Amino acid sequence: MAGSSFGSIFRLTSFGESHGFAIGGVVDGVPAGVRIDLEKIQIDLDKRKPGQSRLVTQRKESDTVQLLSGLLDGVTTGTPIGFIIKNEDQHSSDYDHLKDAYRPSHADYTYQQKYGIRDHRGGGRSSARETACRVVAGSIAKQILESLGIEFSTYVDQIGSVKLEDNSFFLSDAIETNEVRCPDNRIAEKMIELVEQVRAEGDTIGGCVKCMIVNVPVGLGEPVFDKLHADLGKAMFSINAVKGVEFGSGFSSVSKKGSENNDQFLPNRETSTNNSGGIQGGISNGMPIEFRVAFKPVATIMKDQNSINDQGEEILIKGKGRHDPCVVPRAVAIVEAMAAMVILDHYLRNKATKI
Amino acid sequence: MAGSSFGSIFRLTSFGESHGFAIGGVVDGVPAGVRIDLEKIQIDLDKRKPGQSRLVTQRKESDTVQLLSGLLDGVTTGTPIGFIIKNEDQHSSDYDHLKDAYRPSHADYTYQQKYGIRDHRGGGRSSARETACRVVAGSIAKQILESLGIEFSTYVDQIGSVKLEDNSFFLSDAIETNEVRCPDNRIAEKMIELVEQVRAEGDTIGGCVKCMIVNVPVGLGEPVFDKLHADLGKAMFSINAVKGVEFGSGFSSVSKKGSENNDQFLPNRETSTNNSGGIQGGISNGMPIEFRVAFKPVATIMKDQNSINDQGEEILIKGKGRHDPCVVPRAVAIVEAMAAMVILDHYLRNKATKI
Amino acid sequence: MAGSSFGSIFRLTSFGESHGFAIGGVVDGVPAGVRIDLEKIQIDLDKRKPGQSRLVTQRKESDTVQLLSGLLDGVTTGTPIGFIIKNEDQHSSDYDHLKDAYRPSHADYTYQQKYGIRDHRGGGRSSARETACRVVAGSIAKQILESLGIEFSTYVDQIGSVKLEDNSFFLSDAIETNEVRCPDNRIAEKMIELVEQVRAEGDTIGGCVKCMIVNVPVGLGEPVFDKLHADLGKAMFSINAVKGVEFGSGFSSVSKKGSENNDQFLPNRETSTNNSGGIQGGISNGMPIEFRVAFKPVATIMKDQNSINDQGEEILIKGKGRHDPCVVPRAVAIVEAMAAMVILDHYLRNKATKI
Amino acid sequence: MAGSSFGSIFRLTSFGESHGFAIGGVVDGVPAGVRIDLEKIQIDLDKRKPGQSRLVTQRKESDTVQLLSGLLDGVTTGTPIGFIIKNEDQHSSDYDHLKDAYRPSHADYTYQQKYGIRDHRGGGRSSARETACRVVAGSIAKQILESLGIEFSTYVDQIGSVKLEDNSFFLSDAIETNEVRCPDNRIAEKMIELVEQVRAEGDTIGGCVKCMIVNVPVGLGEPVFDKLHADLGKAMFSINAVKGVEFGSGFSSVSKKGSENNDQFLPNRETSTNNSGGIQGGISNGMPIEFRVAFKPVATIMKDQNSINDQGEEILIKGKGRHDPCVVPRAVAIVEAMAAMVILDHYLRNKATKI
Repeated sequence: MAGSSFGSIFRLTSFGESHGFAIGGVVDGVPAGVRIDLEKIQIDLDKRKPGQSRLVTQRKESDTVQLLSGLLDGVTTGTPIGFIIKNEDQHSSDYDHLKDAYRPSHADYTYQQKYGIRDHRGGGRSSARETACRVVAGSIAKQILESLGIEFSTYVDQIGSVKLEDNSFFLSDAIETNEVRCPDNRIAEKMIELVEQVRAEGDTIGGCVKCMIVNVPVGLGEPVFDKLHADLGKAMFSINAVKGVEFGSGFSSVSKKGSENNDQFLPNRETSTNNSGGIQGGISNGMPIEFRVAFKPVATIMKDQNSINDQGEEILIKGKGRHDPCVVPRAVAIVEAMAAMVILDHYLRNKATKI
Repeated sequence: MAGSSFGSIFRLTSFGESHGFAIGGVVDGVPAGVRIDLEKIQIDLDKRKPGQSRLVTQRKESDTVQLLSGLLDGVTTGTPIGFIIKNEDQHSSDYDHLKDAYRPSHADYTYQQKYGIRDHRGGGRSSARETACRVVAGSIAKQILESLGIEFSTYVDQIGSVKLEDNSFFLSDAIETNEVRCPDNRIAEKMIELVEQVRAEGDTIGGCVKCMIVNVPVGLGEPVFDKLHADLGKAMFSINAVKGVEFGSGFSSVSKKGSENNDQFLPNRETSTNNSGGIQGGISNGMPIEFRVAFKPVATIMKDQNSINDQGEEILIKGKGRHDPCVVPRAVAIVEAMAAMVILDHYLRNKATKI
Repeated sequence: MAGSSFGSIFRLTSFGESHGFAIGGVVDGVPAGVRIDLEKIQIDLDKRKPGQSRLVTQRKESDTVQLLSGLLDGVTTGTPIGFIIKNEDQHSSDYDHLKDAYRPSHADYTYQQKYGIRDHRGGGRSSARETACRVVAGSIAKQILESLGIEFSTYVDQIGSVKLEDNSFFLSDAIETNEVRCPDNRIAEKMIELVEQVRAEGDTIGGCVKCMIVNVPVGLGEPVFDKLHADLGKAMFSINAVKGVEFGSGFSSVSKKGSENNDQFLPNRETSTNNSGGIQGGISNGMPIEFRVAFKPVATIMKDQNSINDQGEEILIKGKGRHDPCVVPRAVAIVEAMAAMVILDHYLRNKATKI
Repeated sequence: MAGSSFGSIFRLTSFGESHGFAIGGVVDGVPAGVRIDLEKIQIDLDKRKPGQSRLVTQRKESDTVQLLSGLLDGVTTGTPIGFIIKNEDQHSSDYDHLKDAYRPSHADYTYQQKYGIRDHRGGGRSSARETACRVVAGSIAKQILESLGIEFSTYVDQIGSVKLEDNSFFLSDAIETNEVRCPDNRIAEKMIELVEQVRAEGDTIGGCVKCMIVNVPVGLGEPVFDKLHADLGKAMFSINAVKGVEFGSGFSSVSKKGSENNDQFLPNRETSTNNSGGIQGGISNGMPIEFRVAFKPVATIMKDQNSINDQGEEILIKGKGRHDPCVVPRAVAIVEAMAAMVILDHYLRNKATKI
């Protein structure tokens, strides 16, 4: 089985390379009778798209989505939604020097070995360009979840060693006040400074995205393998450059005692703390779902690097073209989209739990 | 869709509660013609079973697996392997006081809300008892992978704040020299001391399991959603008490620069570092696959805790019964089993990449 | 992917060979909170079991099912139901002469070629013995459907050229009045006479099973590929010896005109005829679902047959052992079980159509 | 789970309604390194398209497919192939009178009830227009199978009561010599005469398509549920207007004795007859795979019909617009496409049977 589909009931199947006519996908399992606002999809796409600020890659793409089916007068009909996003501004020649090269920490080598052939232009299928399709499907999912009262707060909480310590539920307005999508402007300024600095060095830097989801009904998640956080975890690891995921108290829980880490119930069935990150036994418990996603620094840097070619010969990779010094501000939209798909999918799956 | 199956081609479907006649499962997609050693499965089960040392729960179960089908004279026939493990030593009455109680950071409340009914005895389906089935399937997977030269090194690398800094590929002999399964005896001693201490307090402590897999062929993993580490990540998060997973440089890569984190190719197509953890673009690159799994402290403690019952009334949960002060020494077998299932599943999936 | 699982939400995964310790399976996706009557499962199993009358094979098996999990005091908990049926009365030595033989129109040759190994005893996995597991899962499905008012009428409507022309909805009482499960005793007598005759000749004869399902809600079926009759069709073809399936007017519709075959609507939204067999566009329309299943004559006959062995050498297959002169009376239980699984699965799938 | 995907490894996910901007799909699991000839896809599409002869609907659509991804210089890269076919010549106003009407034996009523909303123009998603996407995916599959020597012969063997008795493997040249795609010109003439006659009456007529596949390797099919003919059967029943499917001796085997119906082995491991239709125990046996598919007469007729509307009020449906008096000549391409997808899918699945 190839791996271009995501989700069980609400399911995205995506296609497309960085440098072809278009990327796109099919969203199947969309519940019927829900109004979808095309503009909201576009707003989400714009948060992901390149060229939106001086901190990210200057590749310019309008990333306009075209929905081809599944709607009647803006309302879902229960049939699959097909969509395409045309590729634009393709400097294919930028990649000619990479045709036979294996760039360090890229997927050139693994794709070539797995398939025996690869589209080297812009990374082909391994390019993060495909994540635009996830944002489309995720935005549709979010609009359906919104009608159920479920809301997301997704933001950058760390770049390099600059970390936001306050992990509250921030509104979109607060998050969108600056280019790095960190809701604390004082911290954001330090992050921007750091990104500017690594960009000036021709280098890149990693970061973390925090996601919080509120008003998720109790009961989502399908033990013992499709636990809610297991599917959220897979969703996150499927995003380019993700190296770590943690829920609730996460890695810090390792050095805690049970008496410290346990969440005590309150009479209203909420808990006084949320070290569980809103999930117990793989099932949502009604508390906010909380997790953090670690992104490594982007592998494409503007510095020369030693590497090898298809023949195993040593070569020099020249640092040129357009790149992101730090990807996390754009990744916010992708994390939120993938999370929304998982939550809606499990919402629909849970409907079959009782007759 | 319920969630009792794991894997696409090599697939385990498990069943069973803590306190019924038996737990068990079906392993489908087992390649034909491979000799399976029943004793090796039992050895793996014994690493997971309770009562194996003074550091873990004293619940005694022989955990003897009985294979019911799929083999002819010890050789796989390509048909599904059904198996059962009988439940024993069930102190069901130990759980009478918990019938209406919601224990802190357990799945009592979420199961009750999701299904409207729950088997409260020993945690029912939410008990880690079901992981014995994973060990059976994983052990079968490991024996098949072994015939391909693929090998595992899985061990405890942290308990509380006691951390092993040397993350090499340790042989099973080194890992099994002590009760905590930490291959450095000096560190292991400190870990044991810590576990003894928290046990004496009636408390529990978290820990980390490290897994390294060598000789994995280049090419395993199915982008863009079923990336190898995405499926490994899901596998790990599906294990009870797991709160975090990281691959290669993981969370530490967040504060690194691209020039520091990139893995440089050597002429033999290996890389000089392995910050990628053996996976590039979601596909294995031939380097060791490396990841760490964070386990929270076990929720069952021997201290009294405030909580609520089914009616939302405040109650006191008495700390009694048998429990694990630290679960990671037993979790080693489960992490390895889940990893083996993922690797074999992707090995089989990759066969369809070319005609 | 191996093929031992059936269904999307309500899903059976089965295991087991004719001559091992036990066959069994796991039913996942069972809705929580439904009371299951074990006796009813046993009644269905008894309709399928060998040795129930002089018309079928004299192999004696009590076919007693043991449910291992998923129930609390007889009520489903939403967790998977594991079960086993022990194999008994195994005359393994009856099959010694077939170890290297390829019996005509059996699966000996194809299993050997596909897997490179096969369990020759009693046909191994290719034996119809595995259909007992289908009856268990189907019986559970039927009990859940019964609580929704959905009912089945499944009977033999043809053996050889003896055909029942009245295809009404017959009650179980009428069907169970004779050994061939044909609800018209006059026709049944002719059928019995025919079966007795072919048995005396050491030969076998084919037949048809008719299934009618009433009170199915409008809306079940998932176009465009998982149409209700497409999944029913697959279910039927997966049963041993099935060579044809038709819905509603079926093959006879080929020579009809549209004006003759169309089902006219009545004001109450029923239709005056039911050539559609209760399904339009792959979705149930509220009329009875009707289909017929054609079974070839059993391949095992008591006559000597020429064949070949593993080496391609000509051999003589001796007609001996126990066999069914006509399988359709026993097949009634299997057809009904498979149909029930499909209907319940689609009932659960349809819950996700709207939010 | 919605039902817009078909296949396990080689998998088509389709989208699109009769009257939107475009229909299309994604083919995932395409093996890498195979050259695909776009012209061959177009030739297959032309066999299905409306307006190709006076015997079928006069709706004119060029049905030009546009492949959007997954190929590099005409060779598959192992990544998904996305494609679209633009909708043209849409006389949407032709359907205004049907907005609230439930046409007899159409899916208007069932779609409305299932989803609570439906696109009434041209049948929306229930239109056979979506089958063009199947032809695209099937044509890609056929080209891959062709490289393995596997070949198809698909033709009309019955219209109304006019039946071709010779069911040999006919070459495409013989099939394409006349408008009804019946390889015997004498029979074809009678068929054409019959279709002309029912068209003159404003009526429609049913028919059968026969499919034969040669050089299929022994071993395809995954018992016990995903038997090769079970998946082929489902594939066929998923095609609009199909009411019956039979393999090998099919329904005629019902009145045969085992000694007549059994296929005797020859020393070369072929069989002297092929009543099994090339499949034993759900696994291909190397003989030609043979099956027949029964299509009911098209429901849209040019005669006035009584029916009801959304409110259950009696209405008169006027016979107008464009329609097919007999759909089987166009269905040949669809049957072949679906069969090719199943065979390739099982070819790829079978690769995992052994390590």
